Amino acid sequence: MSSFISVSQNSDFPIENLPYGVFSTRTDTTRHIGVAIGDEILNLGEIADLFDGPELKNHQDVFRQATLNEFMTLPRPAWLEARARIQQLLSADYPLLRDNTDLRSRAFTSQSDAIMHLPAKIGDYTDFYSSIHHATNVGIMFRGKENALMPNWKWLPVGYHGRASSVVVSGTELKRPVGQTKAPEATEPSFGPSKLMDFELEMAFFVGGPENSLGTRVPIEKSEDRIFGVVLMNDWSARDIQAWEYVPLGPFLAKSFATTISPWIVSIEALRPYFVENPVQDPVPPQYLRHDDPFTLDIELAVSIRPDGDSEEHVVCKTNFKHLYWTLKQQLAHHTVNGCNLRPGDLLGSGTVSGPEEGAYGSMLELSWRGAKEVPVGNETRKFLKDGDEVNLSGTCTKNGVRIGFGECRGKLRPADV
Amino acid sequence: MSSFISVSQNSDFPIENLPYGVFSTRTDTTRHIGVAIGDEILNLGEIADLFDGPELKNHQDVFRQATLNEFMTLPRPAWLEARARIQQLLSADYPLLRDNTDLRSRAFTSQSDAIMHLPAKIGDYTDFYSSIHHATNVGIMFRGKENALMPNWKWLPVGYHGRASSVVVSGTELKRPVGQTKAPEATEPSFGPSKLMDFELEMAFFVGGPENSLGTRVPIEKSEDRIFGVVLMNDWSARDIQAWEYVPLGPFLAKSFATTISPWIVSIEALRPYFVENPVQDPVPPQYLRHDDPFTLDIELAVSIRPDGDSEEHVVCKTNFKHLYWTLKQQLAHHTVNGCNLRPGDLLGSGTVSGPEEGAYGSMLELSWRGAKEVPVGNETRKFLKDGDEVNLSGTCTKNGVRIGFGECRGKLRPADV
Ligand SMILES: [Ca+2]
Ligand SMILES: [Ca+2]
Ligand SMILES: [Mg+2]
Ligand SMILES: [Mg+2]
Ligand code: NI
Repeated sequence: MSSFISVSQNSDFPIENLPYGVFSTRTDTTRHIGVAIGDEILNLGEIADLFDGPELKNHQDVFRQATLNEFMTLPRPAWLEARARIQQLLSADYPLLRDNTDLRSRAFTSQSDAIMHLPAKIGDYTDFYSSIHHATNVGIMFRGKENALMPNWKWLPVGYHGRASSVVVSGTELKRPVGQTKAPEATEPSFGPSKLMDFELEMAFFVGGPENSLGTRVPIEKSEDRIFGVVLMNDWSARDIQAWEYVPLGPFLAKSFATTISPWIVSIEALRPYFVENPVQDPVPPQYLRHDDPFTLDIELAVSIRPDGDSEEHVVCKTNFKHLYWTLKQQLAHHTVNGCNLRPGDLLGSGTVSGPEEGAYGSMLELSWRGAKEVPVGNETRKFLKDGDEVNLSGTCTKNGVRIGFGECRGKLRPADV
Repeated sequence: MSSFISVSQNSDFPIENLPYGVFSTRTDTTRHIGVAIGDEILNLGEIADLFDGPELKNHQDVFRQATLNEFMTLPRPAWLEARARIQQLLSADYPLLRDNTDLRSRAFTSQSDAIMHLPAKIGDYTDFYSSIHHATNVGIMFRGKENALMPNWKWLPVGYHGRASSVVVSGTELKRPVGQTKAPEATEPSFGPSKLMDFELEMAFFVGGPENSLGTRVPIEKSEDRIFGVVLMNDWSARDIQAWEYVPLGPFLAKSFATTISPWIVSIEALRPYFVENPVQDPVPPQYLRHDDPFTLDIELAVSIRPDGDSEEHVVCKTNFKHLYWTLKQQLAHHTVNGCNLRPGDLLGSGTVSGPEEGAYGSMLELSWRGAKEVPVGNETRKFLKDGDEVNLSGTCTKNGVRIGFGECRGKLRPADV
């Protein structure tokens, strides 16, 4: 398969990908829905009337919105029809758009001219804790080897509510947060900028499909109808604020100052070739969490840091999304088992993704083993993040010579306001 | 002060109150913004053009919306102007509305004809844990007298993110949730309907005023500009689901199946006469949490249960909102100290309000002391809630012969779907 838009070998966005995003430009500040192809963006608002299949012909307006929520709200057959049509319209051998010079000039924007925005209005944001290597590492550090995993961890996908208002798109700068912290030996807390700033390498999926009404579950067999697509996510964390505040009700201000996601939502359809067998789960979880179809994603992940003034970013972590113990389907089924309503645009994070070996840990907390060792970053070293550090995440899937990627998930840490 | 609308002695809604809500009727399903007065609702959409003062004359459309969010987004002087104008328009001695028969027939709806809705679109919902009696009770039950209060509790208002999508308005029925629970002696969790259903007597405030941009704090001196008004809240809780899931990241499915709020938002201006001295805080909290002006509310609170088929509701708890250790100002200042952006329509819950003595505990968990004793409910007794139980909360302020109330916060528990 190839497109009449040229796509370089190392592009994240070949015609097999086609992720959705929301963009504007300096000259056109209206937000538009677009699809990334090579270095270009296809503006779906401009070609909305070409979605003339049975699922979409009466819903073309979903492509003329400033967020993806209305499109996400349509049932999954509409997502499949949209993807098939976009792939057809971008094909090298399909003339409709290819040969329409006028329409092409309106419908394409260079990614270098685009300002990316949050792809959807996020109603609720939930963060899971689904990497067994991460949960084990954190458990060993804070509770010792014996009690590393909590008794509930292998029975259900542990998760908690996060802050939706502070989810920002890649490229948004953030400030080091201030707050209360207490050193273990101190008798009183102190107040000031966090001294233990961290990233968390995560992926997250956007919920789609019609809302399940409050009081009704989404059975795991139907959970895929509610999984719209996947992004990279950096769940920035202030470890010292977290340690002091989080007992007994969980993380709060340690995370609610910013959470960065990549702007392009890669659909489950694009990711389908990269599903691999699910991890063996022992104990076998309760019935409502069981499914056999492979829904574990083979996505190579990396985190890099670029210190202020450094011209290069330096990889500090390489891991894979397949290390997740709980699948996205299990997360979704669990989230709704009590009747909780999930709305299109809700965001469900995976939890920090760590692999089994040292270089595969998805946070500085683990990489520096709670500050016990220095992590090389180019010519410098880090235990936690310094002001001016820019963190970027990447994710790529490769199979049978096709490579798709997630674009950037980047954020630069500015000094605290004091 | 009196209104040309007759207001009975025991009404929650005299002219001193004037709470805001959103309603429709069976014959007019459009949602309108209204103000409760006696047994009537004044439809602000119908009189929007009468808001001709400097703050509102260019924003009359805020009263023609289906939620209060746009009105809430205006700065506090606009809220004050609106209240003063509504009070004037409803006064017995002000002829403009009183003597306009045609407008009166359009602008008033009987509360008995109204269907109430959520007053605002809730972006994020946060729940605090600010009652020292509640936190101490729970601490004693689960950790013993020695460690009842966590070390952080008196240094900061502990809080966590809740689920916004499942906040419902008074009158909405709810289903007993199902999920995983584990008895202390069991080796494995079991799956089924919660056996320990509870209410939590809370109040919550809606955030108003222009959003603080991400990365900027709201200093405590300015926190009142962001506190729009107060409602009753029942934070329904499944104690057995909670006990199994909540370590280490906090409550999740134990609460996200439903949270009920009262439909009428009582403004801070209406509550001003009922502010009393703040509790003495020892240790003195950090500077960003200090304020001297009284912002503790003297609101008498009660919880009643009406078993299925019973014609009466039976009070099981009487307490007072003044027992809160942390003020609403402190909650708001703390929430933003890390730069977290609060948006108009965000909801901040107080945490369960318990008083110092036994009959003043705001949950069945405390009233039955974790199931150790039976709580009388009319001719029956309860340790936790039974299917068919309807729980109602009430709140009233009385001073100098004026009594204002919060209306109902009611929900009936239906059996689980199995
Ligand atoms: Ca996380
Ligand atoms: Ca609560
Ligand atoms: Mg975050
Ligand atoms: Mg709740
Ligand atoms: Ni109407």
